[in-house]
Amino acid sequence: MNTHLSILSEVKQGNYKILARALTFVENNIAPADQILKNLNPHSENLVIGITGPPGAGKSTLVNAITNHFTAANKRVAILAIDPTSPFNFGSLLGDRIRMAAQFNNPKVFIRSLATRGALGGISAKTIEMVDVLKASNFDIILIETVGVGQSEVEIAGLADKTIVVLVPESGDEVQHIKSGLMEIADCFVINKADRDGADTFANNLKKIVHQGLKSIPVLKTVADKNTGVTELCKWILKPVEMTNERKVHLFAEKAWRIIQNQKMMAVDKKRLQENIQAALVKNDFNVYRFAEEFVKL
Amino acid sequence: MNTHLSILSEVKQGNYKILARALTFVENNIAPADQILKNLNPHSENLVIGITGPPGAGKSTLVNAITNHFTAANKRVAILAIDPTSPFNFGSLLGDRIRMAAQFNNPKVFIRSLATRGALGGISAKTIEMVDVLKASNFDIILIETVGVGQSEVEIAGLADKTIVVLVPESGDEVQHIKSGLMEIADCFVINKADRDGADTFANNLKKIVHQGLKSIPVLKTVADKNTGVTELCKWILKPVEMTNERKVHLFAEKAWRIIQNQKMMAVDKKRLQENIQAALVKNDFNVYRFAEEFVKL
Repeated sequence: MNTHLSILSEVKQGNYKILARALTFVENNIAPADQILKNLNPHSENLVIGITGPPGAGKSTLVNAITNHFTAANKRVAILAIDPTSPFNFGSLLGDRIRMAAQFNNPKVFIRSLATRGALGGISAKTIEMVDVLKASNFDIILIETVGVGQSEVEIAGLADKTIVVLVPESGDEVQHIKSGLMEIADCFVINKADRDGADTFANNLKKIVHQGLKSIPVLKTVADKNTGVTELCKWILKPVEMTNERKVHLFAEKAWRIIQNQKMMAVDKKRLQENIQAALVKNDFNVYRFAEEFVKL
Repeated sequence: MNTHLSILSEVKQGNYKILARALTFVENNIAPADQILKNLNPHSENLVIGITGPPGAGKSTLVNAITNHFTAANKRVAILAIDPTSPFNFGSLLGDRIRMAAQFNNPKVFIRSLATRGALGGISAKTIEMVDVLKASNFDIILIETVGVGQSEVEIAGLADKTIVVLVPESGDEVQHIKSGLMEIADCFVINKADRDGADTFANNLKKIVHQGLKSIPVLKTVADKNTGVTELCKWILKPVEMTNERKVHLFAEKAWRIIQNQKMMAVDKKRLQENIQAALVKNDFNVYRFAEEFVKL
């Protein structure tokens, strides 16, 4: 019995229960996770949209509004909410879950959260894997929501066909300091909570900066909780994506690098590591660099 | 000629020029970085203090005040400012550098910045290495300042003998949501900008939460830019640290894991990776999991 093939077949047909199970296998590296991943068809039809921005920008409310728009048009939407568990993201998760509650009973919507830890290089490999499993399903649109905290361009933008950076009018105070990193990841800027003071000024300043760059990046305004500007944003989301071959190769290389890293670390014998550490400490040998070199060599 | 030994000897004597060079070697993995690291004496006398907290908490101003206090007492202080280059940390670096300018001409003070990227698991290995080089010098106190964004307990607290978490009175609004992660990393809470409204209420609430835990974690109040509360904080910093053997082993294991990861990825032949990716793409084989498995095997 090829369990992984029957799982993949159910996932493809949109069986949420099996999809949830497949994601759990992959998240926790439980068999047949490996077989599922190696049998994914990488040529998927769905549109993957990354939504990122600083805490408090209203990302979840915007995701909610976008989801409502697309499900009303009879499209199937998956949401992957990535929560890098910084101890300083006070209570964000709680609030987000309340805001998303309206979607939990919608049969066209699948929601999954992924709590990642900064530790041990595991963040991105797991995220890549879970997005790839979602892509094997029959969603029209996959929304990846992540708070923008210390993550790389690759991690957010590398997973998505298009990335939306959500800001608020108050972000305008610091617009002159906007780092080039934001320009690299953004395919579209959304100024949310645009009914607050300073939204127009910020939008105009941002447009000026954006126009100096090589890409043409739209600057849109929304008030997500009043559903203002959402239709225009969704129109932009559905515009066909141009993906150069060079960028495809680049993204593949980045993904391969992360997965190789993951595989190499999975191959480390943790029991042997513990034993060797005990032995080194008994010898009172605390130089971790010599230790690591010898451990890798053996 | 044992270049690395003469470098280490100069570093030990507090030669800032050679120290800066050694850090650059290590940061960029230029020879003799490897030899320097493998010849470090891990039993150092200095006190390593981690200072973390959300953006805007006044960490740099506090570091400045702490530095002034200790140099006035004739102590030598090194500052390592770690900037995880999130595109959302608008302009933090610029402001911090201006706030620290007073220290640049103080011969008892050595300052170094380290810009880390979230990408490719490189953050913590480099940080560990640079702190270890600083520990080889004759500083009394090494302050590691880092903004708290999506980093693990290990990354901040694992490097330091003691970790100070800096908050502001406004953080109190979310005090009921303080994640256990903060309790894990904090050896001391500082409520900075404590001349603002709500500081006392927040301090009292925080004390109640703290007292439910296993560790005894002090809650101090400061107004760093007016030098208020800094003397008390510095007294706490100088209190002897108790470090259990269990924790020593745990920290060594965490460090070893990160350095092994770094070494394994350094050993990946990037030219071969590029060639294999090209070959896979020519065959139109885009399943990155099969690719990674085969690459690691070969």
